[in-house]
Amino acid sequence: MSRTQAVYGLHTVRALLDKHPDRVLEVRIAERREDPRSHGIESLARERGRTVRRVSAESLRQMVGDVAHQGVVAEIVPLAPWSQDDLLAAIAAASRPLILALDGVQDPHNLGACLRTADACGVLAVIAPKDRAAQLTPAARKVAAGAAETTPFVACTNLVRTLQMLKQAGLWLFGAQAQASQAAYEADLSGGAVLVLGAEGAGLRQLTQRTCDFTVRLPQLGAVESLNVSVAAGMLLYEAVRQRAPRRP
Amino acid sequence: MSRTQAVYGLHTVRALLDKHPDRVLEVRIAERREDPRSHGIESLARERGRTVRRVSAESLRQMVGDVAHQGVVAEIVPLAPWSQDDLLAAIAAASRPLILALDGVQDPHNLGACLRTADACGVLAVIAPKDRAAQLTPAARKVAAGAAETTPFVACTNLVRTLQMLKQAGLWLFGAQAQASQAAYEADLSGGAVLVLGAEGAGLRQLTQRTCDFTVRLPQLGAVESLNVSVAAGMLLYEAVRQRAPRRP
Repeated sequence: MSRTQAVYGLHTVRALLDKHPDRVLEVRIAERREDPRSHGIESLARERGRTVRRVSAESLRQMVGDVAHQGVVAEIVPLAPWSQDDLLAAIAAASRPLILALDGVQDPHNLGACLRTADACGVLAVIAPKDRAAQLTPAARKVAAGAAETTPFVACTNLVRTLQMLKQAGLWLFGAQAQASQAAYEADLSGGAVLVLGAEGAGLRQLTQRTCDFTVRLPQLGAVESLNVSVAAGMLLYEAVRQRAPRRP
Repeated sequence: MSRTQAVYGLHTVRALLDKHPDRVLEVRIAERREDPRSHGIESLARERGRTVRRVSAESLRQMVGDVAHQGVVAEIVPLAPWSQDDLLAAIAAASRPLILALDGVQDPHNLGACLRTADACGVLAVIAPKDRAAQLTPAARKVAAGAAETTPFVACTNLVRTLQMLKQAGLWLFGAQAQASQAAYEADLSGGAVLVLGAEGAGLRQLTQRTCDFTVRLPQLGAVESLNVSVAAGMLLYEAVRQRAPRRP
């Protein structure tokens, strides 16, 4: 992990200034951006005592590459990985925490895509094994599009043991499984919950599955073997968000 | 498009033998696979009058590359792209057809991922503009993991005109939009429906949005700008499948 990290986009930079101003080292805005949203970010950054610099679009491109940076880039202190103790403390402080656990996802792109979706669904943390699984590499961070800087990642020495610990902390464990008799929308995901996804094709490992309180099924009406893991995570997290919404239909 | 296409995996090959036996030219099974599922595919293929060959694992790898082929590969006649007339005929024959429309998705990987998810959710067809949008390239087919051979793709000369035509055919148009006042689960997606997704970041084009009957919102609780388009498609399709399930909670 480099000592600073660049994140981009109006929404992402604003969210970091709002929630973690102390982690923002500098905000850089394209010289030509003169509009309410970029001015809003400029004032917010100054209010929070952060340095703002007007730079050329080319220099933004050099910082983050050919992405939709919208003329706004922030240099930030990266989010440090969480320990299990950090995770337990955050769970104790949260009401109905939602956690995403990835069991054996090997592709850093899939990890990044899961982090991005987890961020959009208000997930407290994403957990995954330390060994034989994708880690927060630069490729994963890039696909996460800033979410790696806001959604904590916990690398577990032993995923099953961590899951058991979360169970003892009062959370329910739901594993996604193609053969489950219960559909995701038939399960009650509205309380404190850990949603557990396995590797594409292989699915959950046996021991992980036995550790889950429930297994749930996602749509499988077609010809293709399995959903992409980040899409499966998106569906299951969507269902949890739906069930937690103030006015449920 | 090559004149034949290779698809792989037990579930995918079985589905093709079941639904489109005439398109299967040959089934190749790894010599060492001796188990009920591969034997089942072997018998089904012979019942349907298809050639079955036992080959080395290495020759399967040469056909499809380093993927989870599970020892089963079929050489098939690719699914021909659909014309608008094909689409209209299929809609007339379907009860509550579900269609996915992609407005300006440029990345072939995202198109492939959307096809894969559309297949899992029982989508009748995926439609997208012919110009300035991803087409069914080999890269898109690969990410679709076989779904490009079962879920029809319609490339439209003018997407808005096609959407209007679908409206006239009795379908409701739902556009995904971050600022929509209605959440996806508050909309009624249980009838004949077209789910319309825009490009990442940019969202729906204005004219497309005005053509939609409703706009709906997906979870956006986090710091990151927008969901990946294939994840957004997965959430919206999941919601439609949920609402169409026989026993809705």
